[in-house]
Formats: sequence, structure tokens, C-alpha cells
Amino acid sequence: QEGRDKCKTKKLMISTFFLLLLLLLQEFGIHSNETFVVATTDRIVLDFDRFKELRDDTTLYLLQHEHQVLPAATEEKISFMPHYDTLIKSGTYEYYASENKESLAYPLAELIDNALSATAKNAGTRIIEIRMLFDESLGKPAVIVLDNGRGMTTKQLNKWAVYRHSKFTKEKSTFARKEEDYVRPDPVPRSLNSDISYFGVGGKQAVFHFGNVVRMISKPVGLPDVHELVLSEEDFEKKEKNKEDIYSTTILNRKPGDCSHVSEDERFLRTIIEEEPGKESFTAVVITGLKQNHVSFLKDEFVVWTRQLAHIYHYYIHGVNGNDMRQGSKKTDHQSKIDIQVRLQIHLNTFELIASKEPDFFQTLYINSAADTFEFKASTAPDGGTVEGVLRYHPFLYDRETYPKDPDTIKDSLDADDFENEPGLVNQEERRIFECYWNGRLIPGTKVTEFDWCSCKGAKGGDIPPECYSRFSGVLFTDDNFQVTTNKMTFMDLELKLKSKDTIFTLGLNGQKEFVQWLKNCHQNFDKQIKFVGFKGITTRTDV
Amino acid sequence: QEGRDKCKTKKLMISTFFLLLLLLLQEFGIHSNETFVVATTDRIVLDFDRFKELRDDTTLYLLQHEHQVLPAATEEKISFMPHYDTLIKSGTYEYYASENKESLAYPLAELIDNALSATAKNAGTRIIEIRMLFDESLGKPAVIVLDNGRGMTTKQLNKWAVYRHSKFTKEKSTFARKEEDYVRPDPVPRSLNSDISYFGVGGKQAVFHFGNVVRMISKPVGLPDVHELVLSEEDFEKKEKNKEDIYSTTILNRKPGDCSHVSEDERFLRTIIEEEPGKESFTAVVITGLKQNHVSFLKDEFVVWTRQLAHIYHYYIHGVNGNDMRQGSKKTDHQSKIDIQVRLQIHLNTFELIASKEPDFFQTLYINSAADTFEFKASTAPDGGTVEGVLRYHPFLYDRETYPKDPDTIKDSLDADDFENEPGLVNQEERRIFECYWNGRLIPGTKVTEFDWCSCKGAKGGDIPPECYSRFSGVLFTDDNFQVTTNKMTFMDLELKLKSKDTIFTLGLNGQKEFVQWLKNCHQNFDKQIKFVGFKGITTRTDV
Ligand SMILES: Nc1ncnc2c1ncn2[C@@H]1O[C@H](COP(=O)(O)OP(=O)(O)OP(=O)(O)O)[C@@H](O)[C@H]1O
Ligand SMILES: Nc1ncnc2c1ncn2[C@@H]1O[C@H](COP(=O)(O)OP(=O)(O)OP(=O)(O)O)[C@@H](O)[C@H]1O
Ligand SMILES: [Mg+2]
Ligand SMILES: [Mg+2]
Repeated sequence: QEGRDKCKTKKLMISTFFLLLLLLLQEFGIHSNETFVVATTDRIVLDFDRFKELRDDTTLYLLQHEHQVLPAATEEKISFMPHYDTLIKSGTYEYYASENKESLAYPLAELIDNALSATAKNAGTRIIEIRMLFDESLGKPAVIVLDNGRGMTTKQLNKWAVYRHSKFTKEKSTFARKEEDYVRPDPVPRSLNSDISYFGVGGKQAVFHFGNVVRMISKPVGLPDVHELVLSEEDFEKKEKNKEDIYSTTILNRKPGDCSHVSEDERFLRTIIEEEPGKESFTAVVITGLKQNHVSFLKDEFVVWTRQLAHIYHYYIHGVNGNDMRQGSKKTDHQSKIDIQVRLQIHLNTFELIASKEPDFFQTLYINSAADTFEFKASTAPDGGTVEGVLRYHPFLYDRETYPKDPDTIKDSLDADDFENEPGLVNQEERRIFECYWNGRLIPGTKVTEFDWCSCKGAKGGDIPPECYSRFSGVLFTDDNFQVTTNKMTFMDLELKLKSKDTIFTLGLNGQKEFVQWLKNCHQNFDKQIKFVGFKGITTRTDV
Repeated sequence: QEGRDKCKTKKLMISTFFLLLLLLLQEFGIHSNETFVVATTDRIVLDFDRFKELRDDTTLYLLQHEHQVLPAATEEKISFMPHYDTLIKSGTYEYYASENKESLAYPLAELIDNALSATAKNAGTRIIEIRMLFDESLGKPAVIVLDNGRGMTTKQLNKWAVYRHSKFTKEKSTFARKEEDYVRPDPVPRSLNSDISYFGVGGKQAVFHFGNVVRMISKPVGLPDVHELVLSEEDFEKKEKNKEDIYSTTILNRKPGDCSHVSEDERFLRTIIEEEPGKESFTAVVITGLKQNHVSFLKDEFVVWTRQLAHIYHYYIHGVNGNDMRQGSKKTDHQSKIDIQVRLQIHLNTFELIASKEPDFFQTLYINSAADTFEFKASTAPDGGTVEGVLRYHPFLYDRETYPKDPDTIKDSLDADDFENEPGLVNQEERRIFECYWNGRLIPGTKVTEFDWCSCKGAKGGDIPPECYSRFSGVLFTDDNFQVTTNKMTFMDLELKLKSKDTIFTLGLNGQKEFVQWLKNCHQNFDKQIKFVGFKGITTRTDV
């Protein structure tokens, strides 16, 4: 205002507030009869108390008054490191009830995905063990996922902890081992490529969904040491309080079998560590600080979530043709090589399940009640994605439909039969018949409706009764040319792409000529209506 | 092995590899006839090339040979700062097609959520402008969301950039302005509390879903300066390459209207900056580096996504009773106060829409075709969540059902009428009739099925025809006592909780006695079947 410009900024770092004021008077040649204020860029005027809290690099204004307009633009340095909740809360709001089923199988699946990736090149059996230790005599409650895969070096373990560091993140260093460059796997049937890592977030989301402490224990193949890394919410809070570096910690390197560092409340770790010397390589993910509601669910709904897991990994466990238990079905040798074991230990009672031997009631039911299958392929332009598809016909036999009902909902719908098939229902939803698998594992939140070519809407009618169009189930298989959400619960736009007019279907890959013909054959050969057409004699049934 | 322990670790920071080796020989008293190696903890043996790449704080082993077992455990410091993809990719895999509709309205909604929060305490009209500038004469393509809300101080702008820093994150500092302590809003009807911030991720996910550069321009209420913050993928990459601090940058502080820093390819900013001097406070979110497929969608599907936005914010725009256009309906004064404007500018053609005046075809259709409503409340134990609910009866009139069909699917289903009401359909899905609003805004991915008390399954039959049970639509309203996923696309477990046996319903809040009685009345009073019951004379209809 007086021709002299008193608004200056300067980074200041001195020891007392008064010294600061003195210096300012000098530096800017302010007369003692002029008023001035020192303020932050948010125009909070500095007083003695606030001065003590100043960070060294805070930008300050020297102003005639609090509301003076800046005559010239200023720049101010800020730091915006992601809050540690990035890790700690990453899983909290991710695994929601899908199809109205509780979701704990889905965060667990992230850890099984990682174990499947890690064991992809195993020569022998790929063993994945889930141990739920809820027996107080062993220490605090823990969820452990163990695999006999390739393990992690300290460098890989470090990367595991870096949120969003994925296999696609490029790095150039002479310390990078050659094996580390990511190579996209060749296409395989049903996309069972065991390459189920994508975003660099899954493991962290999963462990912090269940609890607030994770201990990663890993021995990399070909190297002698075991590495341990612990991340915990409490530790983050402590570091924040002490103004320490939030994202720093230490990895413990030790020889296999050495459990000298194990504390009493984690004594269950000893059993695991004692098993180490016999193993060439392994990874154990140990989750503690478990949320109480999750522990209750894992205990009480053991059958539900193990069944869901078996559903998610059906084709990894049983091979490309699934769990076909009927005589004469082709078995692939793939089948015997993946072993997913679940063990729940409560008060010295142990429940064990070998997922491979447990039918999952979903795919298994569909596969084994199918009279015939119809295979097809879809190519979506312009991205060049390919989808394999299977339709399965579930015939009408004598007095009932054989289309499997979800065992969880059978009870609910028993008394609904009176109304559910009544005409007059408006706003009826389309039939979502296709379950969808991505890189071989189920994406539980996406079900695709029937396509035009297999819908009764497009049918030219005539000799196939419309009921036949509701007698098939379906499965779709894609690789990661199609995108899924980071929680692997939902496809981004699979259905939209498949329903696009640019998508080309190749139908009848397993020898069928065309869909309508297949359906007609199914109806004629497999549907059995009881019709009395006159007495022909007495037949003794030998097939029951 | 020889009684002397040659495995030591030491942090080393010296200038040449040979000096290192000499020092090691000395330090550990190694005789010149003994062999030894220096290796990283990943057992990569150090040679001259690798030595040059060592970081100052790398932990090294001095070993007899590469595979020697560690006699004692070692600790190694690591840093695991989240990769900058945490920000840059945060939105990429989040906004998927929901109900098979493209999803760009949903990331936009995150920015509107923020604008609604920011304008909650506005005295005058709350104005939210979405400007899509796809006209090359203005510079590169840009999406801009502008609001006349309270704006952000540099400190708040800094926090905006901190991933996962939410309103719940506690902070103690004498620099914190008092207004900053979070106060939970009081319960309001339909939970229209304008408090739609929760996770500290929405804004970042949204902008990086659309593009790879964001410029935040904000002037906080009561303070004189405008603040600008730019985050860009390119800048992150540059910093990584130059080994600079990834999560540091500068905020520009300047006076309103000062556009001296604007570059030619962002000249559209000038218009916005020139508007500044007239405004007490504002925030502009300017997204550039737009993904081409998103630009195409925004242009080509203008009607689709604006309609979806109007659907999401129906109750904010129209007030607690929604857009009831019929005579005699109560209007609330809330209605006139929120103004969401959308402007699309392509090659000098401008399309403008004021969302408040545009019917959205979803809630508007349901509300205006309802003959009567039935209100209820649900309390879920033990968390104490409360849900408000409305059922709306859409009567059968003479020759047709008046239940609104989604305009997007009407075309598809025209030729489906032949089969869709046929009996014999198996595996029929339940009717998902309830749309669900959270803190007043739609959560598009969750639709709740009917409850036992309003389902024809539980009905005792008798005097209400079953079709009546398929003639109502519904809406549920909750606040954030119920959790949603971080992308605000899906409720975590709303339906599970509502269907729990511990949930208590209070039915008939708007004066109805009980549901079955209401439904019966609706049927008797509103459904009109044409029945010929004998000639009664000729009536001239004046109502058409
Ligand atoms: N059991 C394991 N064995 C070996 N390496 C593992 C194991 N689990 C995780 N890793 C390594 O840690 C990395 C990070 O795992 P995380 O699950 O967090 O993300 P991701 O698998 O890369 O991606 P996504 O988000 O799709 O899960 C993996 O890429 C893999 O290299
Ligand atoms: N338009 C705006 N005006 C004023 N402040 C804003 C605006 N947009 C964002 N902010 C501030 O920035 C913060 C971060 O926004 P962001 O959307 O990233 O996360 P959030 O809203 O806190 O949580 P959510 O993940 O639920 O969106 C907000 O909490 C708010 O304080
Ligand atoms: Mg993973
Ligand atoms: Mg937000």
C-alpha cells in the first residue's frame, strides 16, 4: 500500500519465537511503529505456542494483516505419503457378501491365489494348508496359510509389503535375479495357468481383512535362509506417535528350525518352524489380532466357507473337466497334483478337510447331473479376449426337473413352490446361468445371463418346448485379458463385452452341429415324461 | 567350521569395491589363503558391477561360501513405501459395470459426493457443475467438477492428497482449526445428511479412473488465497527415475483470478480462473490426460450417464419425497437448494443439462406411477442400525401392468413376452425390488429382495391374488451405520443383516395398519380389471 512490498515468504528454521520476530524486523527492514503478523499459508497467525509446533520446513508469510491479499504467487512444499491405513484398512471394506453369502472365503482365496502362483512350478504335489488355530493352549488365535511353493527372497518379501507393487512393475537392477522378469504364460485350456497375481494388493487386503498383524515366514528355493517380516497396526501407530519412518521395518534372517525369537503367546509358531528343516522352500502367512466376528464365522460356518473355497478352485482341484464322478469320464493327470487342506483346531478338537476329496455341491452337482454338454468359444473384438464356455443340459426325469438347486437355498424355497411358477409376474429378471472363472478361479460376484443364441427369446419356436431353454446351466472361462476388480469379486465388463455385437461366437466345439439341434437332441434323448401308451408287459428295472 | 565364526554382517558405505575387500580382510582377520565371499542377504555374490549399485544401507554377509547356513539370526532394514500406483491405479479397477450398465457415472459420483459434503453448510444454492471440455480450441480434453462449497486450506488440500486420510483420522496439533474436528451429523429423514465422505480414497480413485493428471484448485471460505495442487503420473515416473522423494510436491498459493501460470494447452483454465474473484469459496477438480475410451463414452452416452447421476442423487435433488410430479404432493423447501449442472462442450457445440430439472426415469417413474405407498422401519441388532423403507403399489389398469420397466431394457424385452411368463421355469431368481440409498445417495450394485412379511411366499393366500405381490417396488434408506465398499458400488452386508432373525420391523409408519391389509386395499381400490357386468348406460369419459 505504501509503495513498499512487505509480503515476503521465507523458509525459517531458528530456535526461538522472539529471535524469529527480531530477525524478521531486521531482514525486512520493518519500523517498530509498523504492525505486521507472521502466519502460515493457511493464515494462522503464529504465537509462541504454535511456534513450538512448527515443522522445520514450514512456509511462513510476513503480512501487514491476517487477510492481506498475496501480491505474488508463492510455492509451498508438501508431503503426501499414503496413510498407513492404506495397508491396515485395505481389506476392511472389500470382501462383501456376494449373492447374499458371507464372504470370508473370498479374502482367504487371495492367499490361496498366491499359494497357487507360488507352487505353479512345483515338481511334486502342490500342498496348500489352511490352519485355523482357535485353541487357547497354543497361544492367541491365528489363521495360517502355508504352501510348499518357491518362497520369497528378502527382496521379494520386501516387495510383498509394497502396496501396489505388482509383477508388472518394471525394475532395472543388477541385483534382480533373472527369474524375476515376468513372462506371460501361454494359453492353456480353461485358463488354468496358476498365474493369479495381478494388482499387488491381494495378500495385504486379505490379511488385514482378518486381523491386524501379519507375520510372513518364507524360505526361497535354492537359498539357505528363512526370512520373517512382521507388519502390525500397533507398530504403525507407535511409529506415527514417535514420528519415526512409517514405512520402515526389519526382516529377520535365520536358519530353518530356529525358533528362539518366538514369544509365549505365539507358541503355535514353534510347530511350524520345527517343520522347516525338511522343506526345500515354503511360505507361511500367519495372521493374528483376528477380529472376533471373523473368528466366530470361521468356527460356526466351517462347512459353508470350505464349500465356497472348493467351489472357487473347483477346476484347479479337479482338472479341466471338473469333478466328473460318473463312470467312463476322462480324468486328467492334473487332478492329483493340487492338495488344498483345511484344518480347524478348537479346544483340542481338530476338524480336517481335504478340499480335493470334498465335493463342493456347486460345480460338482452341475457336472454330475448333466446329461450332455455343449461347448463354445467367444472372441471379443477389438481387445482379442477369448472366452471358453460350456452349457450343460439337466433333463426332466419322470416326475421332476434335475436342474440342481443351491443347497443353501433349498430349504428356503420348499414352501415357495405354490407361487413361483405362477404367470403374471412382472419385472422378471433374466436367468443368470453362467458362473465365471478368471485364470481358472471363480469370480463369485459375476453371473452372466444367457446369450441370444441360447435364449428362448430368440428361438424360432416350433418343435422344442420352451421349458427346455431353462434346463441348462453354464460356465465361462477367461484369462486376464478380461479385467476383474482388485478384490477379485467381480468382472469389470465381461458381460457387456460378450453381449456386444462385435463378439464372435464359435458354437459346438465338442462335435455338436448347432445349438438348437443339440437342445432338441437333449430333449428327445434325455427328458423322460411318463406317458401311458397302453399295456406292453412287465419290465423289471435293473438300473436302480 | 574351524571354530572361528566368519559370518558377520555389517553396514558398509565406502567408495570402492577393492577398498571394501581389503577392509574385510583386515576387519575379520581373514588369512589370504582362505576363500570368502561378500553377498547380499539374498545370497547374490558381490562383484564390481553390482557393488556400484549398492544402496548405502544394504545389509551384507561375509561368508565362507555362497550357501553357508547362518549360524546366528540377522536383522535387515527394509522400506516398503506404497508404490505410487496406489494413487495412479486406485480407480482403474474399481468402477465396473453394475447391473450391466457402464459405470462412468459412478466415479463421477465420487466427485459429486465431495461437492455435496463441501456445500452442506452453504447459505444459498449449492451449485455443482460438471464441465466436459472436448473442444480442441480450448486446449486438451478435460473433465472439470466445480462446486461453490467451503473449499480447502493448504493443509486440507495436502490431506486430500494423502491416500486413506479420512475425516476419522485423528490428529492433534495447535494448527488444527477447530472446525476440523469431525462431528457426526444428527439423524435426518432418508439420511440426507450430505456427509458422504468416509474412506479418504474416493476423490483420488475417481480422478485417476478418468485420467492421469489432476489439478485441484480451491479457495477456502474466509481466507484470501487460492491454492493449486497438481498430481500426475508422469511426475511420479520422473521422480522415481531421478530417485527423488516420490510423495513430495508443491502447492501454488496465489490471489484469485491470477492465471499467469496457465500453459497454452490448458487454456480452458483461464475461463475458470477468471470466474474466481466473484466467489467467496470454491473447489475445482480438473482432470486431464483422459483415457480415450472414457472420452468416447462421455460423449456418446451423454444421456445414459446423466440419467444415472440423476438417479444416484434423486433424493438430494428432489428432497425426501422424491420427484413427485402429481398435483397435491408435498414439496419440501430442500428441493430448490441443490443444483447439479452438466455441460458437454464438443467442437463449439454445447449441451447443457440441469439435473434438477431432468427426470431420471428411475425413481421418478416409480414415484409417479405409484397409487399408494407403505412405509416401514427396520432396526438391526446388535449394531443399532436403522433402515427406512418405502413400498409403492403399481396397480393393474384395464389392460396392462403399470409397474415401470427400466427404459434401457424395454427395447430388449419387447419380443420376450411370449415366454417370460410361462410356467415351468426352474431356478427362478427372487425379485430384487429394493433400491438402496446410503447417506442419501444410491448404492447402485445392491438390490435387496422382498422380505418375508411382504412376500407372496409367506402369504396366507385367500383373498389377495398372488399377482398383487409383484406389483410393488421399494426403496431403502440407511446412513453409514451400514457399511459400503470403498467404491460405494455395493453394500457390505445390508441384506444379510436385514434378513437376520434379530432384525425388528416396524410396519405401516404412514398410517397403514398392516401390510396385508394395505395390499388388499390397494388391490380393491386401484387395480382395474375390465369386467362386463351388464349394460348400465353410456358414460362419456372426461378423464382422457
Ligand atoms: N505364498 C507366496 N509364495 C511366494 N510369493 C508370494 C506368496 N504370496 C505372495 N507372494 C509374492 O508377493 C507378491 C504380492 O502378493 P499380493 O497377493 O499382495 O499381490 P499380487 O499377488 O501380486 O497381486 P493381487 O493383488 O492380484 O493379489 C506376489 O506378487 C508374489 O510375488
Ligand atoms: N470439493 C471439495 N471441497 C472441499 N473439500 C473437499 C472436496 N473434495 C474433497 N475434499 C476434501 O478432501 C478429502 C478427501 O476426499 P476423498 O474423496 O479423496 O476422500 P473422502 O471423501 O474423505 O472419503 P471417500 O473415500 O468416502 O470419498 C475429503 O474428506 C474432504 O475433506
Ligand atoms: Mg495375490
Ligand atoms: Mg469423497
